[in-house]
Amino acid sequence: MAFEHLDAEGARRAANALDSRGGAKTLPIAGAPFGIKDIIDTADMPTGYGSPIHAGHRPSADAACVALSRKAGGIALGKTVTTEFANLHPGKTRNPHDPRRTPGGSSSGSAAAVAAMMLPLALGTQTTSSTIRPASFCGVVGFVPSYGSISVSGVRAAAGSLDRLGLFARTVDDVALYADVLRGIPPEPSPSTQGFAPRIGFCADFLADRMESGTADALSRLARTLGTAGAAVADIAVPPAFSRLTDEHRWISSFEFVRNFTYEIENHWDRISTTLREGRISHGLACSYEQYLAARRLAGDAQRQIDVLFGPHDVLLAASAAGEAPEGTATGDFAFCAVWTVLGLPAVSLPLLSGPAGLPIGAQLLARPGEDARLLAAASWVMAHGG
Amino acid sequence: MAFEHLDAEGARRAANALDSRGGAKTLPIAGAPFGIKDIIDTADMPTGYGSPIHAGHRPSADAACVALSRKAGGIALGKTVTTEFANLHPGKTRNPHDPRRTPGGSSSGSAAAVAAMMLPLALGTQTTSSTIRPASFCGVVGFVPSYGSISVSGVRAAAGSLDRLGLFARTVDDVALYADVLRGIPPEPSPSTQGFAPRIGFCADFLADRMESGTADALSRLARTLGTAGAAVADIAVPPAFSRLTDEHRWISSFEFVRNFTYEIENHWDRISTTLREGRISHGLACSYEQYLAARRLAGDAQRQIDVLFGPHDVLLAASAAGEAPEGTATGDFAFCAVWTVLGLPAVSLPLLSGPAGLPIGAQLLARPGEDARLLAAASWVMAHGG
Repeated sequence: MAFEHLDAEGARRAANALDSRGGAKTLPIAGAPFGIKDIIDTADMPTGYGSPIHAGHRPSADAACVALSRKAGGIALGKTVTTEFANLHPGKTRNPHDPRRTPGGSSSGSAAAVAAMMLPLALGTQTTSSTIRPASFCGVVGFVPSYGSISVSGVRAAAGSLDRLGLFARTVDDVALYADVLRGIPPEPSPSTQGFAPRIGFCADFLADRMESGTADALSRLARTLGTAGAAVADIAVPPAFSRLTDEHRWISSFEFVRNFTYEIENHWDRISTTLREGRISHGLACSYEQYLAARRLAGDAQRQIDVLFGPHDVLLAASAAGEAPEGTATGDFAFCAVWTVLGLPAVSLPLLSGPAGLPIGAQLLARPGEDARLLAAASWVMAHGG
Repeated sequence: MAFEHLDAEGARRAANALDSRGGAKTLPIAGAPFGIKDIIDTADMPTGYGSPIHAGHRPSADAACVALSRKAGGIALGKTVTTEFANLHPGKTRNPHDPRRTPGGSSSGSAAAVAAMMLPLALGTQTTSSTIRPASFCGVVGFVPSYGSISVSGVRAAAGSLDRLGLFARTVDDVALYADVLRGIPPEPSPSTQGFAPRIGFCADFLADRMESGTADALSRLARTLGTAGAAVADIAVPPAFSRLTDEHRWISSFEFVRNFTYEIENHWDRISTTLREGRISHGLACSYEQYLAARRLAGDAQRQIDVLFGPHDVLLAASAAGEAPEGTATGDFAFCAVWTVLGLPAVSLPLLSGPAGLPIGAQLLARPGEDARLLAAASWVMAHGG
């Protein structure tokens, strides 16, 4: 139930074509199947954006990320389930660790397919928490690059000033390699775990009141383990100018969403879910232009203070989600990424924690914008020493 | 020759539907026909992106700007001619003032259709100079809002960190009204020309070596006229940290372009023009990742110095183009916008100057990012006093 559309025959053809031109020897991700969240355009597979309005739609080009994956030898295996327009209304995917639970959203199918070993690589997106949260719930590595650093051309926009591509894989090395493919650059050597003990700012109290019981403790144990292994770990308090950005995030994303979906709202109102109508759309229509501009101004002010937030630390450590994947289909608390998303920070979720039911919870690492390589090097070190 | 696709029947139906629901009385641009550059998606008209690769393609949704225009009562009359993928290879449109000359590009059809009185409003885009330059050559008002302030969802991306929507109309009031429609907000009252004499920084020497003879003189005469009318006009020198951004603009736009068009390059190389292959694509493939990152870093540094550039001035005054529209089909020198585009400044071209052949040349006004309202108020004043 992770796929909206599976193209086994197309994948076989692509693999044969790759073999016949000898690409398997030289290309960075030669022969690796990858999944594509169904809000991302594909020329040879339907792209429905998680909505009955667009079921069966066939774009005329691959999105940049799809074409770059194929150019690097990747084999497109299919379109993965997304929530409706990458918002809240869930798709059919369940959590592979426990089918009574959500895989998280909105990149539900991509996270679940990688967790269930159907795929080594998958593409998602993140406007709020749509990569880090499902990676956390499904127990895989999720990576969101610095805002604006990897093209979203051919990805249906939710809120352009927040939208980013998201990547799923089972290892940090794999997301690092795949990120270079999507940048369209020769892959860098894998981030080394040798001799790099990161300076970690631990956001121990951040959103502690929204966490499930046990999450904070598990995160603290990880922080202590990393300190013992040689990392410089220091508690930091996230100043209110940052933590209140959760509200600003919501205003910005809702205001932009309703404008980006004007066509659907005006022409297909009856085929939009009640969840979306009464949630994001209602909120976006209620947001005045003044409120929106104020939110963007506060976001901009905070972006200019990112160095103050990080201080001497290479990365920040925080929870990826409130806890284990909840039962049911609701995709879970979004707040654990909203602040970092507004700031445009590169983020990675590492499957290092677990909850009372033995299900995965992610540890989130964050770095300054543009320091994606430093983030992934730190993530490699943390995976090696925090497990 | 301004239209790629004309939908007179659809326009009639839309106008009748508007009448029958009484929208003509209350909506901001009720009944106004508008044109849509053919790199912008429309659900009911083909969208070919100026390339034979995509001829006849039918998107499944209107771009945000199209849906917002229709919601506000605008009547979509057709798709206007764009250069190939909004780059250099020209379309079939000629300059309505002299058919031997280019209308400019890449929003060629939109500018020409407004100039030829076929349309009161038209949508374009700008990644380099694709709105300001054709507005200048065709003698209409062109407006480019602050980067990131109006949604480009549903617009085929050229270079995401530079792409903006562009608007064409015959008056400043019209572009101001239309910009509010595209923001999806209630229209502000028209910018008043009363009691607002702007403080103008005049970039007299900026790119003077690339201007046609007569352009600099015409611009200086305008500056003197505005000073006499009460504006505070002072010469400013654009520091080299800004003027060299023309090169950085080119690296950024080329690097991003080739990644965004990976699908076409990999699958349809033989249907890409030689102009595009040997120009933008060749340049983009030659740009290393280090070169690209360095260019973005310099652009970011300059963006943080915008207040220094503007000093006490409300707006800057510069040429919109080197001079009159050149003969032939080449779309003209791009440099007169590249620097301002990298900075994300809102820009307007005003049809106030003319050249030796009596053809129009635009005067370009620029403001700080976010100060679009101040820019348009200054533009109203300049139109009233500079004519």
